[in-house]
Amino acid sequence: MLSVETDAYFMKQALLEAEQAYREGEVPVGAVVVSGGQILARAHNQTERLRDVTAHAEMLAVTAASEYLGSKYLTECTLFVTLEPCLMCAGALRWAQLGGLVYAAEDEKRGFMSVGRQVLHPRTKVRYGLMEGEAAALLRRFFAERRKK
Amino acid sequence: MLSVETDAYFMKQALLEAEQAYREGEVPVGAVVVSGGQILARAHNQTERLRDVTAHAEMLAVTAASEYLGSKYLTECTLFVTLEPCLMCAGALRWAQLGGLVYAAEDEKRGFMSVGRQVLHPRTKVRYGLMEGEAAALLRRFFAERRKK
Repeated sequence: MLSVETDAYFMKQALLEAEQAYREGEVPVGAVVVSGGQILARAHNQTERLRDVTAHAEMLAVTAASEYLGSKYLTECTLFVTLEPCLMCAGALRWAQLGGLVYAAEDEKRGFMSVGRQVLHPRTKVRYGLMEGEAAALLRRFFAERRKK
Repeated sequence: MLSVETDAYFMKQALLEAEQAYREGEVPVGAVVVSGGQILARAHNQTERLRDVTAHAEMLAVTAASEYLGSKYLTECTLFVTLEPCLMCAGALRWAQLGGLVYAAEDEKRGFMSVGRQVLHPRTKVRYGLMEGEAAALLRRFFAERRKK
């Protein structure tokens, strides 16, 4: 199968998920899991709706992709996510032996890179900064509005 | 309410959960969440059954306790778990602002202490080593049997 979709297309889909989170009053982070040029799972942050700290976009997307594939390993998958994963999510990505990770905005305070690359599986290929501006702007808008309340 | 239960009692309950995981062919780790002297949630590792790397005992217990309390914060709760939490689980415990963590066996390879105490929330009180022998023996038995297959 020939895939004509690009990384920018997949990150755009993750951003659409983040915008959905924004509309629901959730911290706007979105994610999609891609394999063979196709989206297997998509999710956005739902920690408020579910009242569950574990309901980050990445966690929901990993669980959904594993359900779809019938496998807990995601070695042939790439996760596109609008914000640098936190330690919880990076830990999950390691257990899943994720093939690739592409994230948009960096998270200096809570991101896994505050500990380091070794938090992920050694074979996970990492790329970041793709559509960083849009992803970060949405997060800034959300927190600015929340401070006003 | 006066609680007559001890930490050893709650860790024993976590061990019973770990034994249930063992019987199901799961890596034998169990957990309970306690508040006000009562068990709010109990869980064991289900990563094989659910084919989901996020289904560690701690994650399932945190989600269940939050559901029970109607709050994503577990500031008044103590988690008893038979093995030192991994980075994913420790990250979740941080987000939940967990009040207390008591774990039995250490996990030198995958445990959060390989990164350090700061992975948890600053106010989470930590204690370990309680019933370490039983918890570690069950894990050793599981992996020894698996190597034989």
